[in-house]
Amino acid sequence: TLAYDMATNSLEPSNPSSSESLEPPTIAERDALAKRESGVSPTSSMRLRMESFIKEQQKQIIAELEKIDGSKFRIDTWDRPEGGGGISCVLQEGNVFEKAGVNTSIVYGSLPRPAIQRMRANHKALDPDVESLEFFAAGISMVLHPHNPMAPTVHLNYRYFETANADGSPNAWWFGGGTDLTPNYLFDEDAIHFHRTIKEACDAHDKGYYPRFKEWCDSYFSVKHRGESRGLGGIFFDDLDETEKDQENLFSFVQDCCKSFLPSYIPILLKRKDMPYTEAEKDWQQVRRGRYVEFNLVHDRGTSFGLNTPGARIESILMSLPLTARWKYMHTPEPGSREERLVSVLKKPVEWV
Amino acid sequence: TLAYDMATNSLEPSNPSSSESLEPPTIAERDALAKRESGVSPTSSMRLRMESFIKEQQKQIIAELEKIDGSKFRIDTWDRPEGGGGISCVLQEGNVFEKAGVNTSIVYGSLPRPAIQRMRANHKALDPDVESLEFFAAGISMVLHPHNPMAPTVHLNYRYFETANADGSPNAWWFGGGTDLTPNYLFDEDAIHFHRTIKEACDAHDKGYYPRFKEWCDSYFSVKHRGESRGLGGIFFDDLDETEKDQENLFSFVQDCCKSFLPSYIPILLKRKDMPYTEAEKDWQQVRRGRYVEFNLVHDRGTSFGLNTPGARIESILMSLPLTARWKYMHTPEPGSREERLVSVLKKPVEWV
Repeated sequence: TLAYDMATNSLEPSNPSSSESLEPPTIAERDALAKRESGVSPTSSMRLRMESFIKEQQKQIIAELEKIDGSKFRIDTWDRPEGGGGISCVLQEGNVFEKAGVNTSIVYGSLPRPAIQRMRANHKALDPDVESLEFFAAGISMVLHPHNPMAPTVHLNYRYFETANADGSPNAWWFGGGTDLTPNYLFDEDAIHFHRTIKEACDAHDKGYYPRFKEWCDSYFSVKHRGESRGLGGIFFDDLDETEKDQENLFSFVQDCCKSFLPSYIPILLKRKDMPYTEAEKDWQQVRRGRYVEFNLVHDRGTSFGLNTPGARIESILMSLPLTARWKYMHTPEPGSREERLVSVLKKPVEWV
Repeated sequence: TLAYDMATNSLEPSNPSSSESLEPPTIAERDALAKRESGVSPTSSMRLRMESFIKEQQKQIIAELEKIDGSKFRIDTWDRPEGGGGISCVLQEGNVFEKAGVNTSIVYGSLPRPAIQRMRANHKALDPDVESLEFFAAGISMVLHPHNPMAPTVHLNYRYFETANADGSPNAWWFGGGTDLTPNYLFDEDAIHFHRTIKEACDAHDKGYYPRFKEWCDSYFSVKHRGESRGLGGIFFDDLDETEKDQENLFSFVQDCCKSFLPSYIPILLKRKDMPYTEAEKDWQQVRRGRYVEFNLVHDRGTSFGLNTPGARIESILMSLPLTARWKYMHTPEPGSREERLVSVLKKPVEWV
């Protein structure tokens, strides 16, 4: 039982506090106990509800993608010694997908003082007078790279972050995330469908969200050294906390964004996955994948944070990279070609809806 | 003539100082004048001699590589508006090389005060009491990626840096550089030959150099997030200035290092370039190339500096990336395989000589 695990320190072997009976329980211990005793319901804490939501979404997305691909995801689950863990689902060299990764992760840890100071810039609720704060982070992230160069790569990530007071009550919290589309060939109707679907999910919550988060996305997914965007954008937001809207409203917004993923992408995939293509078009896809790698390894803050986190699961972080990529020296699209049209849009983001 | 160019500001269009006749000439102007008037001789400044040396080396290396490959390098030259410029030579999809790049660059510019302060940590000769300093940098850099997975990738870079006093005389200066070997399959005899050849070049100057610079190389070319080295190492050094040895001695050392490249690598290439290999071995090469990309984009300071320099020639910086690479999720070599032997050596660098 959990009480036995806690008493004998077998649940949290790396956490010295749990062996000292006078220390209050960590939030990881509190959450594990709450789940064992009462399960997760609409009255559970946001930590438990977000965890439950993203795991449910992961299952639905994987089921849908397996149906389309005709092959199965490999599923790796792991636990973190401090509490939490992850589920990495990867489908590699499938029928439709060259590589598809859908991960969830739950992290319990401790923020040191300098990290708290940095985060206070965006979150005044963070207690400035402590040496460290327990934190919780839950996120789902996904990248799909289809084989067919006419079918776009897509990325999605939604996450919830919370810090805890010493008594386990929430201190500061915020949501972040987004989704964006990266085609090798531009089909205007696809761009419009993707953006319109996301916009509808946003509009149901706040008419200001889509324009704000679309612009944030264009500015975040910029391959600065190339002077171009990674793709056609979508939405991106971070640090949405009580200064934006109350927690229930924001959770509901994030849920609707996440649920809009399948309708935003699957119709595009179905239209493009079996289109005929030439060797030259496959080659262009490979060059664009090189740019995708450049963004993820050079500019993406999430990847960089992950790679610099001791003990991080590198294979889960780098599942975002395509199976194959190319770097051709001085590769320039022909004037007037479809490749050139794509690059011109990447250099100057378009309003699709 | 140069005097005319300087007077009419047509030589240095971006440099306002050259249009004001009361300003002293920049070091770029001084060097251009010296080359026009007297050429480059053993009594010329170190700036001119280093420039001349690396361009000569570039020609020799390219001639040798073209002989082996049977196809020609594409040569791009460009000028920098502030003075200096570069020569990028790339051979792509050749007979032996998938991608081979040999670049030289000459940079004249101005260091702002914060950069000077940072550099003073290693170079006390730098004048601390100025708002900016003119600087000069000359370097040769090369990465060769052969097609055959039995033939190793190799990297080389040698560079000279100098700052100038207001009267154009040298203020601080230093040399840096090195070379390292990155095979996909380990042939001990190749590793020994490569390291022995470099060690001989080092030993002729200082018996302490090879051990110091071999260790520096192992520590620099570490793919930290993977817990492995990029390859089998070689040598790496930086900031070698008057506190190490006098300038002539260091220049002579750097010249000998650079000249030892062809004898260190070409015999290995000739032995491996036509070896038979399987699809699985080609695939392993592609996975190792993925790691090469990870090091260069995530950890290499030179690449990161280049990508963050406004106006830098991105295609020249990224010529170091292989033409093709792969990221396979959870790819682990078979126990007892040659692939596993390589990884074990990358996890724990070996003394080869």
